[in-house]
Amino acid sequence: MGASSPVDASRPTDAERLARMRMSRVCEPGDADACRLVREHTAQALVERLEAGGLPYPKAAAWAERLPGADIDVLRRATDRVGARYLIPGDAEWPAQLEDLRLLESSTGDRRGGEPFGLWVRGTLALSEVVPTAVAIVGARASTEYGDHVAGLLAAGCAAAGSVVVSGGAYGIDAAAHRGALAVDGGTVAVLASGMNRFYPVAHGGLLDEVAATGLLLSEAAPGCAPSRSRFLVRNRLIAALTHGTVVVEAALRSGSLNTARWARDLGRVLMGVPGPVTSMLSAGVHEMLRQPESILVTDAAEVVEMVTPIGTALAPVKQGSTSPRDDLDRPSRRVLDAVPKVAAAPAASIAAIAEMGPSEALGRLADLSRRGFVVRVFDGWRLPPEGPDAP
Amino acid sequence: MGASSPVDASRPTDAERLARMRMSRVCEPGDADACRLVREHTAQALVERLEAGGLPYPKAAAWAERLPGADIDVLRRATDRVGARYLIPGDAEWPAQLEDLRLLESSTGDRRGGEPFGLWVRGTLALSEVVPTAVAIVGARASTEYGDHVAGLLAAGCAAAGSVVVSGGAYGIDAAAHRGALAVDGGTVAVLASGMNRFYPVAHGGLLDEVAATGLLLSEAAPGCAPSRSRFLVRNRLIAALTHGTVVVEAALRSGSLNTARWARDLGRVLMGVPGPVTSMLSAGVHEMLRQPESILVTDAAEVVEMVTPIGTALAPVKQGSTSPRDDLDRPSRRVLDAVPKVAAAPAASIAAIAEMGPSEALGRLADLSRRGFVVRVFDGWRLPPEGPDAP
Repeated sequence: MGASSPVDASRPTDAERLARMRMSRVCEPGDADACRLVREHTAQALVERLEAGGLPYPKAAAWAERLPGADIDVLRRATDRVGARYLIPGDAEWPAQLEDLRLLESSTGDRRGGEPFGLWVRGTLALSEVVPTAVAIVGARASTEYGDHVAGLLAAGCAAAGSVVVSGGAYGIDAAAHRGALAVDGGTVAVLASGMNRFYPVAHGGLLDEVAATGLLLSEAAPGCAPSRSRFLVRNRLIAALTHGTVVVEAALRSGSLNTARWARDLGRVLMGVPGPVTSMLSAGVHEMLRQPESILVTDAAEVVEMVTPIGTALAPVKQGSTSPRDDLDRPSRRVLDAVPKVAAAPAASIAAIAEMGPSEALGRLADLSRRGFVVRVFDGWRLPPEGPDAP
Repeated sequence: MGASSPVDASRPTDAERLARMRMSRVCEPGDADACRLVREHTAQALVERLEAGGLPYPKAAAWAERLPGADIDVLRRATDRVGARYLIPGDAEWPAQLEDLRLLESSTGDRRGGEPFGLWVRGTLALSEVVPTAVAIVGARASTEYGDHVAGLLAAGCAAAGSVVVSGGAYGIDAAAHRGALAVDGGTVAVLASGMNRFYPVAHGGLLDEVAATGLLLSEAAPGCAPSRSRFLVRNRLIAALTHGTVVVEAALRSGSLNTARWARDLGRVLMGVPGPVTSMLSAGVHEMLRQPESILVTDAAEVVEMVTPIGTALAPVKQGSTSPRDDLDRPSRRVLDAVPKVAAAPAASIAAIAEMGPSEALGRLADLSRRGFVVRVFDGWRLPPEGPDAP
């Protein structure tokens, strides 16, 4: 491949695009070696070299063995048939954030998956435009009603606030997240582990069509590529890389969603988790994650949006109970107020005794509290007003 | 008070002990000024000065007004009647950890409450001996069944591991914590906000007697002192100061338990919280606390014990799901395994196609998987064994 010069990423050629489609078909999605070789040498040069049998790696031999079956016309027709477009780096729609996968690979030697060299995309949104506000919401397939409910609320809240909700299109939390965003006519993106013509699960065909109608379907896998466990794992890196942060809603220990979470952490994305009952095995993985210092607990959409938008533009309000005017009282006056009976009135001397205060001071404070509406003087002493401030 | 020399804390005199009892009766429990004046000048000197009317502060005038009512014989009889002893600094049983309250006050000017100058204690345990292993478990009074259940389990687990469970004797989480420790014959301590002869809530008389029988009841308030909201708040500082860490199980926003949590944080104790459903208002305060970096999420007793025992003596096992032998497989072999059908067998070529791998490589890997028991060869191809490893 020595003769080829690296591709000019700013102006991809049709020949390079087609060569990448073919490479997508012959190598495993996200294969770190393939990603690096295509990036460094262009897919065109790599395909030529594979066809010439000139690459000594065992893996390259497997690619070469499969190249004749990766017919470019078949791939183009399949792409057209599913209404998708094939994006590669240098396209205006290509999201710059995916480069972080290359940085992770080159800085840490991470071999779990490189920057994809191409993506099939179906839908009306521009991928590069959804990414700046995107948040991933992922979790267990065998989720609970609680998890589905919370995932839906979070997604609806994030989408309503203008964030695009990215997930994996699976049963359970993923589906609840997509549906939550769709419910408020918000943007949502499903990143698939299989080719665009092989929806997984099959039963989600309708949901995924709906996602594509207003949002985006996305896959690194060529049409025809079947879903598999290892493909779900490399797919997860795209969910993490395409978003500012990942929220895990329910996850058992060793759940695949925690794999997305690890990608988010390794890519420097915000890692968020929704707690649940400690008695639920489906929250155990989230809790274990939340015990790590790099993750943050979130309970509602405002807290998520705050984490995934530029600093200061969306601060979640600090939660606090209703304020009550008694908070304005100083401590001795609160002590007196605490000592005033709710219904039957008490004389000032007895209130003073309960408040452990001299009767003269107590009387002065009762008078002040009465002026401020906290207590009322009745014929036989002092009591709280019928609908007074909160009693102790 | 200039003539008096500071008390020699290592050998408290009877006169000083009695003077502190009286000061406990005339001033508000935990009053920061009283705590400091008694510490700096001895209670004996302070009482003399108050009786002589020689202190110009308005607060001192209130104390002086109440001194004649704080009869020492009445206090002693009341102490005897409830079977309590009155401890002061310098007693062998006095816990050194309470000094942290003085350090907090002097280093930050914190005025919420000083080091107590005396404590009523009822029970057979020695206070100084329970503190080195003590953990506080606190939470909402209006707790849920979930909260009570988890508090009970945590307390039982901590107590079984040798930690003494400290709480406030209240309804809800406090009671569940005491009961959990009692259920495993473990040590438990209730720190009261009222005098030892005024149980609060009254309905917990039986529970508190049971706590005293095997553990300890503790109060800074003199016999006769009624409970009040402000007294609960200063009482909370003792729960935090007497323990290595505080676990909040359920707490609404602005709950009193969060006040104990703040004391724990300010005193450099470990701050722990048990999560719950984000849909539960009774977990909202805990979640808000867990969003702060100084707190840690805990889900079981082992995680609590790990935090409150000296480093390395009790490491909670990192939670993980069951391991499966497929984790030992390399990625290409897992890809092949993913492509093997569960029931109806498939030929190697079709498995190779699904695994996106050359047929020759796939065949070699199938043979290896077969040797290791992951797949079986049948007359028409390959399939998973009837009860094989987990399928994708």
